Amino acid sequence: MPVDRSKILLDTAKRLLRRGATGHLHKIVNKTHAADLAAVFRFLTIREQEALFDLLDTVEQKALFFSALEEEILLKLIEDMPAEKIAEILEQMPNDDVADLLGKLSDERAKALLDLMTKEGSEEVEGLLSYDAETAGGIMLPDFIALKEETTARGAIEALQKEYVDIEMPFYLYVVDDHDKLAGVISLRQLVVVPPETRLESMMATDVVSVQTDTDQEEVAKIVARYDILAVPVVDEINTLVGIVTVDDVIDIIREEATEDILKMAGAGEGLIETQSLFKSTRIRLPWLLASWIGGVIAFFVIGHFESSLNKLVYLAAFIPIIMGMGGNIGTQSSTIVVRGLATGQLNLGQIWLVVSKELTIGFLLGFVYGLLVGFVVHLRYDLWLLGITVGLAVLSSMTIAALVGSLVPMAFARIHIDPAVATGPFVTTSIDILSVFLYFQIATVLLHL
Amino acid sequence: MPVDRSKILLDTAKRLLRRGATGHLHKIVNKTHAADLAAVFRFLTIREQEALFDLLDTVEQKALFFSALEEEILLKLIEDMPAEKIAEILEQMPNDDVADLLGKLSDERAKALLDLMTKEGSEEVEGLLSYDAETAGGIMLPDFIALKEETTARGAIEALQKEYVDIEMPFYLYVVDDHDKLAGVISLRQLVVVPPETRLESMMATDVVSVQTDTDQEEVAKIVARYDILAVPVVDEINTLVGIVTVDDVIDIIREEATEDILKMAGAGEGLIETQSLFKSTRIRLPWLLASWIGGVIAFFVIGHFESSLNKLVYLAAFIPIIMGMGGNIGTQSSTIVVRGLATGQLNLGQIWLVVSKELTIGFLLGFVYGLLVGFVVHLRYDLWLLGITVGLAVLSSMTIAALVGSLVPMAFARIHIDPAVATGPFVTTSIDILSVFLYFQIATVLLHL
Repeated sequence: MPVDRSKILLDTAKRLLRRGATGHLHKIVNKTHAADLAAVFRFLTIREQEALFDLLDTVEQKALFFSALEEEILLKLIEDMPAEKIAEILEQMPNDDVADLLGKLSDERAKALLDLMTKEGSEEVEGLLSYDAETAGGIMLPDFIALKEETTARGAIEALQKEYVDIEMPFYLYVVDDHDKLAGVISLRQLVVVPPETRLESMMATDVVSVQTDTDQEEVAKIVARYDILAVPVVDEINTLVGIVTVDDVIDIIREEATEDILKMAGAGEGLIETQSLFKSTRIRLPWLLASWIGGVIAFFVIGHFESSLNKLVYLAAFIPIIMGMGGNIGTQSSTIVVRGLATGQLNLGQIWLVVSKELTIGFLLGFVYGLLVGFVVHLRYDLWLLGITVGLAVLSSMTIAALVGSLVPMAFARIHIDPAVATGPFVTTSIDILSVFLYFQIATVLLHL
Repeated sequence: MPVDRSKILLDTAKRLLRRGATGHLHKIVNKTHAADLAAVFRFLTIREQEALFDLLDTVEQKALFFSALEEEILLKLIEDMPAEKIAEILEQMPNDDVADLLGKLSDERAKALLDLMTKEGSEEVEGLLSYDAETAGGIMLPDFIALKEETTARGAIEALQKEYVDIEMPFYLYVVDDHDKLAGVISLRQLVVVPPETRLESMMATDVVSVQTDTDQEEVAKIVARYDILAVPVVDEINTLVGIVTVDDVIDIIREEATEDILKMAGAGEGLIETQSLFKSTRIRLPWLLASWIGGVIAFFVIGHFESSLNKLVYLAAFIPIIMGMGGNIGTQSSTIVVRGLATGQLNLGQIWLVVSKELTIGFLLGFVYGLLVGFVVHLRYDLWLLGITVGLAVLSSMTIAALVGSLVPMAFARIHIDPAVATGPFVTTSIDILSVFLYFQIATVLLHL
């Protein structure tokens, strides 16, 4: 739904709720796609949310709506809802969504809800909950189509009509051997174009791309994206087919991982925190600033060390901002390119020296350009060419070192298996600040005989 | 393919090429999935790339490989390839991929290639080329299944077996009226579970989510993600069905747009430039640094303005880094949260004052914490509590203003339809630097009677 229509729905809902015109609103809510309704919930108060939600007629609609709603909002919405009412809705949701939700609740609450569900559903959900939430096992759908090799195309279509009516994405049919091990895959499309007596084993593709239950979700997303497939089968350690991850979940993962990387690099948490409490937002952002604070304190001891130079030439202070700013910004450019390149697979660790030496060259070239420019301005302002050379050299060295640190640090972190997005931000900016200031005063003390 | 297997393929290819063991390599290359082969190309020299590519046996394999290869690498690979050879491969590729590629070539070269292709293919590609590359029209696939309302399920299956054998993603069948206007949609799965005589019009869903040819690709991606669909139909201004955008292309768009946003915020271009020429990389990063350079020059005139204060109390200079660093970092956090929130739709422009006031509060709280800390350290070091208060107040005001500027600027840019990711970086960091330094010296001059 285009942004405009989203806005119309939101405004209408707010207006009708204010007026208490529930009759009219009831019609609108039950006609709206669950995903559209979910998209406006973020912009409503909890009271408005509850009122709108209660207008949904059927348990099926509520289940679709729960699946479409952002987790954070859903958790708030069900906070005061009676367990019986929630369990009834969970019964109608895909089990992977149920497991996602229960994984976020307290153990007692999750247990209570599971006890209220039918045995079949709760067992499947418990199975999913046993996997790490960010692995293939944690995100997979345990419902899939698995047929034996000797099944015919006609037999497969009959199975679709009877046994597999509720399957969410029935576009691939997996073929398993007598021990339920994954043997091949057939697309629904192939099935309708072959003669009805064809056996699956004679038409299936046997080089099936699959993932293991403990494969990281980011890796799962990369595989689905690379092979342009609509779902990837998940197998356990002995190749038994246990679930599938579908492309719609992969899209969510790709978006979340990108958001996570962007925020982590700025030290602003892992998920968008604008809707979180003020206290929580503040706490999430505190640690990264601590690194920067420590760096700042070190910088003032460094400058204190050069106090006698400063005393002799007080306007040295005026150039601290430009030297720090140029170094900091080119360092951010280098580290951003490397962190994103590693995340998308467009850079790999084997290229570490290639990348670092290229960044170093770029840092030097840009440092030369801007160092020259700044030196010239300083000379114009103070009519001291030696001061111009000092500041120019400081900008050159600051930018060169920043490009080096900015590219080397994330690569080094990645090599020792520390998430480069998390570690890079504070480490790179802080060390560049300190190094830039130190080099500047060192150059000034030597060149200007201070 | 997991990272390890990618690395094995790469190492093997490089080793066998060096040895000239083309016989063995020929077998490997022709057994490898096109996507896997494409993934290692980035790490080969152009000579190695050409040698590997020539080992592919059939035109169909070459076409799959072209479709899987990253654009930038493909453009280099075909640079010296004879037009006849390229055209032969293009014939076998999906037309949306052909249009993407031709759109990146010079007009003459594209025209020459089109002339070498069959009339049917070249007309379709020319049709696609007439749309803006970043709209639904520019990315859509012109091949889709469109059947009349009165067709039966059996008739539809027969059409699949004869007419639509080459369709890339035949999971949705679109139903059109007598004027080819989009009337409904049926999933392939429904088709196999209904009685063969059922007419499509009696089983189709009529509330079809569709996009227009000029819908921005980012909007298309959001729609596919929101409704969890595998393809979205594209219609022209009079609702005639003209193409579909499939979920595999949507995944690519989501990844590209995320990369673009991340890089733009750091002023490092729009695509990953590590593989681009040194000169081009340098040029892309120059403008953003110019903003920061201008800011730095302004900052030194600001500090120059306070030269007499500095003369009286030279170690004021020592606190410039911590004041700039704390302001810059919290400003980056605020602007990152807002830019990403706007991009994912989790924030909207209607909330501007809510978001800004929250950021302002967070800036004040964190400023208070770190201001207090820094004031204490300054007092310890210089035994001057008034200096401690000065620096503490400067950190507090710098961080508060940074959070305000960092959240307000991207929202304001978005409101006047300027891409917040591009404009935010240089504008926010530069203005925060200048404001921080000015306020610091102003506070010091007043409080310390300089």
